[in-house]
Amino acid sequence: MTTAPQWVKDLKPAGPQGSDLLKAERAQSNVNVDQLKTFLFTKEGLERKHRILRILEKESIFDKSQNYFAGRVDRFETALARAKKSRQLQVKHKWTQEDKMVANELISEPGPYGLHESMFLITLRDQGTPEQHDKYLRKAEQYQYIGCYAQTELGHGSNVRGLETLAIWNPDDKTFTIHSPTLTASKWWIGSLGRTANHAVVMAQLVIGGKPYGPHPFVVQIRDLETHEPLKDIYIGDIGPKFGYNTMDNGFLLFNKVKVPHIAMLAKFSSVDPKTNRYIKPASASLVYGTLTWVRSTIVMQAGGVLARGVTIATRYCAVRRQFQDRDAKEWEKGENQVINYTTVQIRLLPLLATCFALHFTGKGMMALYAANQKKMSQDVGKAGDKQRGAGPEETHSGSDLLADLHATSCGLKSLASYTAVEGLEVCRRACGGHGYSSFSGIGPWYADYLPTATWEGDNYMLTQQVARYLLKSARAVLQGHEPTNDTTAILANFLARQDQGAAFDILGNDADLVAAFAWRSAFLTFEALRHRDEQKRAWNSLLVDFYRLSRAHSQYMVVKNFYETLHDGADGLDAPSLALLHKLFRLYALHTLESEASEFYTSSAVTVRQIQLARASAVMKLLEDIRPHAVRLVDAWDFPDWQLDSSLGRFDGKVYEDMFMRAAEQNPLNRVTVDPYPESPVLFKKNDAVALKQRSKL
Amino acid sequence: MTTAPQWVKDLKPAGPQGSDLLKAERAQSNVNVDQLKTFLFTKEGLERKHRILRILEKESIFDKSQNYFAGRVDRFETALARAKKSRQLQVKHKWTQEDKMVANELISEPGPYGLHESMFLITLRDQGTPEQHDKYLRKAEQYQYIGCYAQTELGHGSNVRGLETLAIWNPDDKTFTIHSPTLTASKWWIGSLGRTANHAVVMAQLVIGGKPYGPHPFVVQIRDLETHEPLKDIYIGDIGPKFGYNTMDNGFLLFNKVKVPHIAMLAKFSSVDPKTNRYIKPASASLVYGTLTWVRSTIVMQAGGVLARGVTIATRYCAVRRQFQDRDAKEWEKGENQVINYTTVQIRLLPLLATCFALHFTGKGMMALYAANQKKMSQDVGKAGDKQRGAGPEETHSGSDLLADLHATSCGLKSLASYTAVEGLEVCRRACGGHGYSSFSGIGPWYADYLPTATWEGDNYMLTQQVARYLLKSARAVLQGHEPTNDTTAILANFLARQDQGAAFDILGNDADLVAAFAWRSAFLTFEALRHRDEQKRAWNSLLVDFYRLSRAHSQYMVVKNFYETLHDGADGLDAPSLALLHKLFRLYALHTLESEASEFYTSSAVTVRQIQLARASAVMKLLEDIRPHAVRLVDAWDFPDWQLDSSLGRFDGKVYEDMFMRAAEQNPLNRVTVDPYPESPVLFKKNDAVALKQRSKL
Repeated sequence: MTTAPQWVKDLKPAGPQGSDLLKAERAQSNVNVDQLKTFLFTKEGLERKHRILRILEKESIFDKSQNYFAGRVDRFETALARAKKSRQLQVKHKWTQEDKMVANELISEPGPYGLHESMFLITLRDQGTPEQHDKYLRKAEQYQYIGCYAQTELGHGSNVRGLETLAIWNPDDKTFTIHSPTLTASKWWIGSLGRTANHAVVMAQLVIGGKPYGPHPFVVQIRDLETHEPLKDIYIGDIGPKFGYNTMDNGFLLFNKVKVPHIAMLAKFSSVDPKTNRYIKPASASLVYGTLTWVRSTIVMQAGGVLARGVTIATRYCAVRRQFQDRDAKEWEKGENQVINYTTVQIRLLPLLATCFALHFTGKGMMALYAANQKKMSQDVGKAGDKQRGAGPEETHSGSDLLADLHATSCGLKSLASYTAVEGLEVCRRACGGHGYSSFSGIGPWYADYLPTATWEGDNYMLTQQVARYLLKSARAVLQGHEPTNDTTAILANFLARQDQGAAFDILGNDADLVAAFAWRSAFLTFEALRHRDEQKRAWNSLLVDFYRLSRAHSQYMVVKNFYETLHDGADGLDAPSLALLHKLFRLYALHTLESEASEFYTSSAVTVRQIQLARASAVMKLLEDIRPHAVRLVDAWDFPDWQLDSSLGRFDGKVYEDMFMRAAEQNPLNRVTVDPYPESPVLFKKNDAVALKQRSKL
Repeated sequence: MTTAPQWVKDLKPAGPQGSDLLKAERAQSNVNVDQLKTFLFTKEGLERKHRILRILEKESIFDKSQNYFAGRVDRFETALARAKKSRQLQVKHKWTQEDKMVANELISEPGPYGLHESMFLITLRDQGTPEQHDKYLRKAEQYQYIGCYAQTELGHGSNVRGLETLAIWNPDDKTFTIHSPTLTASKWWIGSLGRTANHAVVMAQLVIGGKPYGPHPFVVQIRDLETHEPLKDIYIGDIGPKFGYNTMDNGFLLFNKVKVPHIAMLAKFSSVDPKTNRYIKPASASLVYGTLTWVRSTIVMQAGGVLARGVTIATRYCAVRRQFQDRDAKEWEKGENQVINYTTVQIRLLPLLATCFALHFTGKGMMALYAANQKKMSQDVGKAGDKQRGAGPEETHSGSDLLADLHATSCGLKSLASYTAVEGLEVCRRACGGHGYSSFSGIGPWYADYLPTATWEGDNYMLTQQVARYLLKSARAVLQGHEPTNDTTAILANFLARQDQGAAFDILGNDADLVAAFAWRSAFLTFEALRHRDEQKRAWNSLLVDFYRLSRAHSQYMVVKNFYETLHDGADGLDAPSLALLHKLFRLYALHTLESEASEFYTSSAVTVRQIQLARASAVMKLLEDIRPHAVRLVDAWDFPDWQLDSSLGRFDGKVYEDMFMRAAEQNPLNRVTVDPYPESPVLFKKNDAVALKQRSKL
């Protein structure tokens, strides 16, 4: 790259310098950042991250400076090189799976081994028999078999029952024929499939004797282990560029009557008896549902951290950026105001900062619940036997109450949390003004890669039906006089008992009342939906919008409750000032949510119009003012290394403008080209530093 | 590209076919598409578009099939080739400026001549003297001078007064010295500057005799006309990749004491007298403000069409896509349901469809108002003389009432319209489910390119202060007993007169009342804000959030009013069924907006809680049901050619899956690569069809 002339190098940003501004921000707050960090991530978690960071930083292949410039093929090539290097480092440093995940988070881009290392290995492990572990899992763990998880089809997304790919049992030679009868049966969106995988777990409709038995998983070799070319009668490719995720080779896959042996069907839960040619039912469908519930729980947990990245960048930049004078400023108050001092900026950023903590604590709570449930389940499986055979969780009864609650909760919270993170990141990007649009902000590319989370593992709209169905069922049980068995039925019963007296929650003065107001609104909406469905016999489809709102309301209650409980029951290790500040963040999250959804709170009589007005006009504004001085330290506590953020605007040291300029002037390959700008000239580039344009990454 | 084997070519999507589904959609509606098209765009407008489309389609350089794959440098190179070809076609076919704009809309990507053809030429024309027209404008019109408009700086966005670049008058040799004193003074984000322009209009702080006179425009040559290298003491480059807009070379620019002659300062409105070395004040600052008001008006107009693109794609795809059975479906109702039949999809798409019409009509209304005002202004300029000298529009008084109103309206509506289009496009993208994330959806890239509109020509948050300031001023005038002089003061006076009786608007039965309810809420919020500011003496900064809400409320009132008036006063040429349907769209837009902002409508007593509940639970749901059958024809009326949409999902003929598959399998360069997937192997690509990977576009 041409270096800038000396007079350019001598230039500094206009004062005050960003580094001084951030220093002043940190000086004015008494938040103990190390303590808060440890509270969020534990000492071990933090040490692990920094140990792995030191290793990654030294490898040139992980240098991020060209990420934002390259085209699709180059980006994929680099991502493949990085995936290989990560795996080599894992072997070399004996990283656990968790270490590897931390490395992936630091690298922060989806990679070609992504689905091999997650769904392929997990499915083989969880749904394979010991014999299948020997045949497939061992080689997969050694990366001799590299796999993907092929469920979604071109014409079929969330609806697994609608999948068209067939697996027809052949009683004669004890094989299955895997076949794609139509174009829409093509597997589509399958991560790691497009170029990388040589095996796939294929979800296909099992057919025995002409009769369908629903979708089941089959392990299929799809590419030659030597040449890596697709096998005969298999057609594979990458599905093309996307809004983000372009370092991943999401692929398509078609089968033309491909035979696989009996062992290809993953048989831990259900199978075909090769002697009788009969289907053997799963012992407990609930266990299968468990995986998705787990995946959704991790999404809730991650959403807080995903959003915190955007909030960190925007908060630091808004403390460095100065724009306009305060209109009320006195004559002698010279200079422009830090953007973070404007209330229109605070009202966007600070509630999101509170949301990061809210989601993090909620995710933690769910993971704990999930672990407790898994333990209980595996104890029960022996006893319960075939009581639940063939039943999805929405059909189960009071016996597995915890599972049903967890399943519904995970659906609603996954929808709310991923939606909130997606929306919030974009709010952060825009809060950075024009520079938020530059890739160097680090928010746009991160947002684009995170976006599919709102769609996968259950579309955020579809999922809310599961929550509504569960709440309606719980409400029916309460109406029938069943004793409450969990928190959901408890709040419904409480509402029923008190609805005639009405609520008089002191939302502005009492934290427990604030939580209770959210519970009240959720219960109110539940019984209203129940009336529509059971009494007025309204069509299910006509109620979907109400169900969406209901799910959102119930999930917001869960988040408020988890945040509250964390501060009241589990805040050991925090000093008084930090705890007091977290209480303010709790109130900001709750009150800001409450006033955004004001009309549901009125309508349910959980609060009065006057209370909402007060919440909006004074309580929230006062909280913004109180939290403002601590904003920079609070984002520091999320402990994102600069290497991970890869953002000019979010630099820890505040050297925002220097970094923007350096990246543009020195790392930008377009600046190696001199164009011929005149319309009649057929020449496009007069000078073209072709070697430099093509800085191919080497392994 | 490797062609698919015969068995793949023989595959069809599972039935019913997308083409049959769209045919059925069109058959079930009686909307006269041609008539509605003509109503929206006029006969001449439609003919112009299709005439130009036929020319563009024939040129291979405009082939869009590789747009979504290429990296930054390649994309820019192609965009430059396209810009040249467009200009050649303009000369060849004698296109007017309007023709050229239509061509740009069809090509649908920002190009390297973008700022030359807009702000550079406009500024030279509007702010140059006849002498300057001779020196600069003629050559610019011939593309010998290719220019850009350099205002924004690295450290300074919307705040023009904060710009750091200096233009120091040298009385000795009658020149100006253009200088960048700091790094943050670097011009930044300047479209067409990075690689293309050889001239710039530079906004710089004029300094005469050590005294600053504020920002003024200077024409500066920045690159050599032969070599195209930057001139001495000028440092230029492209600022790097962005979230979108990567076909444009947004650039940076630094000056190290560069001298330019006296004629370089554009002198139509203000100048430096070279004899006396004194500043000559502008005749009327209002005229300068006019340009930005005009730009904002066009943004409102365009926002409807921008959003309509997304709505067209999503509506067609949701009519083709089928997912899940209706839960209430009878046993014999086989097959999956069209996604557009789900109310959760309708509630997202149909209000947006209504919004497209609402914004289009509002934009039209503003343009008419602007034209009327310009006419009046140029008549007045002679008479008014220096009455308004040096005054921005917010300081002007009742005499130029229309201008003040238009300025405020354009700020608020620009903010609302661009925000609505941005948010709406993303809603459309997600309504397409997983496939919305593919670049082939055509929504993501379009969204990414449109996004900066929310920031430029006035940040959407900052702008709302202008609206609030104007409304407060108007309210003060009304309180002082001044007679209403325009619609804004009229609704404020009406509110004052009636506030004690209260409102009893029949929002569910009467369209005029629906408009009146929006006016009422806007007036209520205005007087509330006034009380906070004038009586309670609250700080300006503490009221910014209220001002934002106020601006939004007032702008929504303007949109509702414009929509209503178009249907009542200007709907000639529409038959009764179409007009009735547009009335439903009007009601859907108004009621859906009203219920989304419910709490402000309660609080102001414009409506009752019961009315909101009815609006939500029945009126809006009934409108969705009524409009649903016409959805596809209504989007057809926006008349987007497939060539322009460049979307698999939005194809007019419904062949969604065939097109997705073809693009992925046949146009995708990543599929020309065979990888070596094993972690230990240093080889990344075993086979690499390098020639094919590099399909450089030729002029």
